[in-house]
Amino acid sequence: MTPPPQKSKKTLILSAEDVLHLLRFYGRDEVMDRVIAAMHEAFRRLPAGELELPPRSGFYWNQPELGLLEWMPVLERGRSATIKVVAYIPGNPSARALPTVVGTISLYDPIRGHLEALADGVLLTAVRTGAASALATRVLSRPRVETVGLVGCGMQAVTQLHALSRVIAFERVLICDIERALEESFATRAAFLDLPIERAPLEVIERESDVLCTITSVGVGEGPVLRGDELKAHVHVNAVGSDFPGKTEIPRTVLERSLVCPDFREQAVREGECQQLDADEIGPELSEIVSEPERFADWQERSTVFDSTGSALEDHAAMQVVVDMAHEQGIGTWIQLEHLPEDTRDPYGPVAPRAVSVELAGQSS
Amino acid sequence: MTPPPQKSKKTLILSAEDVLHLLRFYGRDEVMDRVIAAMHEAFRRLPAGELELPPRSGFYWNQPELGLLEWMPVLERGRSATIKVVAYIPGNPSARALPTVVGTISLYDPIRGHLEALADGVLLTAVRTGAASALATRVLSRPRVETVGLVGCGMQAVTQLHALSRVIAFERVLICDIERALEESFATRAAFLDLPIERAPLEVIERESDVLCTITSVGVGEGPVLRGDELKAHVHVNAVGSDFPGKTEIPRTVLERSLVCPDFREQAVREGECQQLDADEIGPELSEIVSEPERFADWQERSTVFDSTGSALEDHAAMQVVVDMAHEQGIGTWIQLEHLPEDTRDPYGPVAPRAVSVELAGQSS
Repeated sequence: MTPPPQKSKKTLILSAEDVLHLLRFYGRDEVMDRVIAAMHEAFRRLPAGELELPPRSGFYWNQPELGLLEWMPVLERGRSATIKVVAYIPGNPSARALPTVVGTISLYDPIRGHLEALADGVLLTAVRTGAASALATRVLSRPRVETVGLVGCGMQAVTQLHALSRVIAFERVLICDIERALEESFATRAAFLDLPIERAPLEVIERESDVLCTITSVGVGEGPVLRGDELKAHVHVNAVGSDFPGKTEIPRTVLERSLVCPDFREQAVREGECQQLDADEIGPELSEIVSEPERFADWQERSTVFDSTGSALEDHAAMQVVVDMAHEQGIGTWIQLEHLPEDTRDPYGPVAPRAVSVELAGQSS
Repeated sequence: MTPPPQKSKKTLILSAEDVLHLLRFYGRDEVMDRVIAAMHEAFRRLPAGELELPPRSGFYWNQPELGLLEWMPVLERGRSATIKVVAYIPGNPSARALPTVVGTISLYDPIRGHLEALADGVLLTAVRTGAASALATRVLSRPRVETVGLVGCGMQAVTQLHALSRVIAFERVLICDIERALEESFATRAAFLDLPIERAPLEVIERESDVLCTITSVGVGEGPVLRGDELKAHVHVNAVGSDFPGKTEIPRTVLERSLVCPDFREQAVREGECQQLDADEIGPELSEIVSEPERFADWQERSTVFDSTGSALEDHAAMQVVVDMAHEQGIGTWIQLEHLPEDTRDPYGPVAPRAVSVELAGQSS
């Protein structure tokens, strides 16, 4: 990842429209490819200890409805830091026509303490969550398969499928959702991928998929979502929905017979599918498999589960990409957000009106 | 504190200049008074359990120089949340002409997960830190005194003095700093207060002050800053500089004979003067003394220390005030920051160019 390209004292604000502009200009595929590449690089560097990545923390409430507001920080020592602040509000789409995941991503220069850039986190979360699945899938799935299955057809399903299409070849897509309307609209939302998409019952999807993504908003204690007794022996599952204590999508029996790769072990044991496992049942972290893919090549023929809880490192990589692109294209709004008075010890200095000396001849004040 | 005055999907960005504009329009005194009042109200409500206030957390480094990047969150259940992200970089003023404290404050609507507003945190941190000392001083100091002493003459010293001037009456100000230039410039920076300000040796300040503020960047393990053996029996000390493990300004002997009031006990025992104390030596929290000031009136005649580590609740109160003022004045920049597509499940929907159907008569495509 590149360091901030200029030492401005201003903050680059990238609006939703700015990010969309970048997606239009570069194309979805190039954006996704660059995010996958940046994330690959970030995860390869994680074990070197240059990064500090605490598990996310946040506020949680279930009155008047379920909600979460989380902060997800990561520090690249001496270079940059990213903090995503993100809400997870499952009632948003139906109650107020807002996405389930709403957030923004901030990029800091830790040397100066300066907020370099702020951008939409809604689209970037969807993109980077897809990219993380792509990284795991590239290592753990057969490179050419017949069928990809999507369990859950919300916003994240679109970017999961898009990301997979960038790293493996497949012939058809089977989808299902408990919301009929989402099943019906999915093909239109994913039309840009030009793939045959069919609705299918969950059991058919489980039986026929070579690669599966579970991307549901299953409630706490209501999982698992999959039945798991008819999965293919070589299936690779990207388990994306599990991201909160008590929320799981994959039956323990499937996890037991699979290599389970968490994106971030410390977080996955609290919030991911790894909640269901003992420490010695948990496989290598994503950073390990992307660093040494050849070590895990045999697993392409066996059952594997990517336990994706989502990490700030993924946001960091995605944010770097869009900020770089914004600099390349000169887009965004620069705002002098932080009060940086000329005399750094004079907080009110610029408040005072400029000294005005008015003296009119012959007039006493 | 008022709920967000409008349910916009956009984010209100308040630049440094916007905040300065509010200070010019309303005047420093009214801004400070409103922040003190809002903070008073917030601290009174804290014990009622409507607020969730975790201790701050952050990244810390000491290579190539000392630095911190912290996130400070607070939630008013069902109403609003504030997160300040703030860097503390003692080398900033001398190395790069930037303030020691650089940050921004974000205000969220937790119901929707929406970022309501983002504002400068540099000036607001100085103002709210002053306001917190004012709250403690109003309860624990005599209302009319002779001398206020400032140990440390940086940015925070200006707002400490300003805030005190709004809640107690005093005749003169004694100041000192290990940086001669800061001592020399202080009177100019605080000229708007129209108070007699004199430089004095630390021992004179300790001997003659009725109210003292310590606002230094003393290094970890290098404290205490005060000697403490000649303080007045009724002195009230606002100990503001201590905000990190190992960083203290006040000798334990002074704390032992004083009522020590932390702004936020859980944080103060880790980062404040309370690090030096056993649990039973720590007095009431600020929320307690502002809720029942009459219970603590006797302490105006005895030694008291306000252990100010700084809390997100203070930022929340200050942020509410400036956002309310911005709404009153219609200032700031509204940006559609979050990507909120019409179809909440269609992340890329608005990426696609509008369907363009061009057909020219007589031409086949």
